[in-house]
Amino acid sequence: MTAPAQPASGAAEDWLAALRFDDQGLIPAIAQDAKTGTVLMMAWMNADAVRETVRTGRAVYYSRSRARLWRKGEESGHVQQVHDIRLDCDGDVLLLKITQIGGIACHTGRERCFYRSLDLDGGAPAWTVQDPVLKDPDTIYGHSHAHPHPGGH
Amino acid sequence: MTAPAQPASGAAEDWLAALRFDDQGLIPAIAQDAKTGTVLMMAWMNADAVRETVRTGRAVYYSRSRARLWRKGEESGHVQQVHDIRLDCDGDVLLLKITQIGGIACHTGRERCFYRSLDLDGGAPAWTVQDPVLKDPDTIYGHSHAHPHPGGH
Repeated sequence: MTAPAQPASGAAEDWLAALRFDDQGLIPAIAQDAKTGTVLMMAWMNADAVRETVRTGRAVYYSRSRARLWRKGEESGHVQQVHDIRLDCDGDVLLLKITQIGGIACHTGRERCFYRSLDLDGGAPAWTVQDPVLKDPDTIYGHSHAHPHPGGH
Repeated sequence: MTAPAQPASGAAEDWLAALRFDDQGLIPAIAQDAKTGTVLMMAWMNADAVRETVRTGRAVYYSRSRARLWRKGEESGHVQQVHDIRLDCDGDVLLLKITQIGGIACHTGRERCFYRSLDLDGGAPAWTVQDPVLKDPDTIYGHSHAHPHPGGH
């Protein structure tokens, strides 16, 4: 761990230098509901996404499929207000405590992306859907659009 | 999303085929305390790690730095009992609800790896340590070893 563990004076972006981006310049960011603790989603950020998230207090990811910044909620209105940003011991994963406006983080219209659970009760394990669709994605994004899911997050 | 959303009969590893591993054969796995909801860590799994986790009910990761399976707690005793495994909408992130034996997930001797928070109150943002060391890593791993941190998780 080479990152400073205590506040450091120096260049204005010392804090950003503590992050270890992967060879594509990305770092995973986990979004957790600040009130309930529910893990809503995991997506990726590049340095610009991290900077803008910190500057604006709204979660900005990097869409690998679109190869551009993905301002969460830019089309759905389901923005994420960021209350706390945490960094892990290796400096290569971020954890965001957020408020999910609209209560829907997933492009399927569910509260969270982790809506499938591995059922081990039967013979072979099987993924089972546990969470309800709260809102039809067509309603969220409009009928004329393909769902603007920044696929592969 | 091409993964089956409902239980599917067929080959015994249909459930594993729903996972989208990256080009290194890995998938991120978030470990969350089943009782408190605290996000403890994020690490990586390959297909064998996922299989063994499901079969044994204990979290097994893949250590990128050691290039081998990392049975969490194999040296520290701090194993993770897995109660629930969830998959996200894209099939490329896992979420594990676990019990952390020993109450310490991080190799630094802290409850969780996300012990630094970005302090925005001063001039430039700065990472500040928020969580105490619960146990000296030398005590956890023994004095004669370098800390067996599977670095970069």
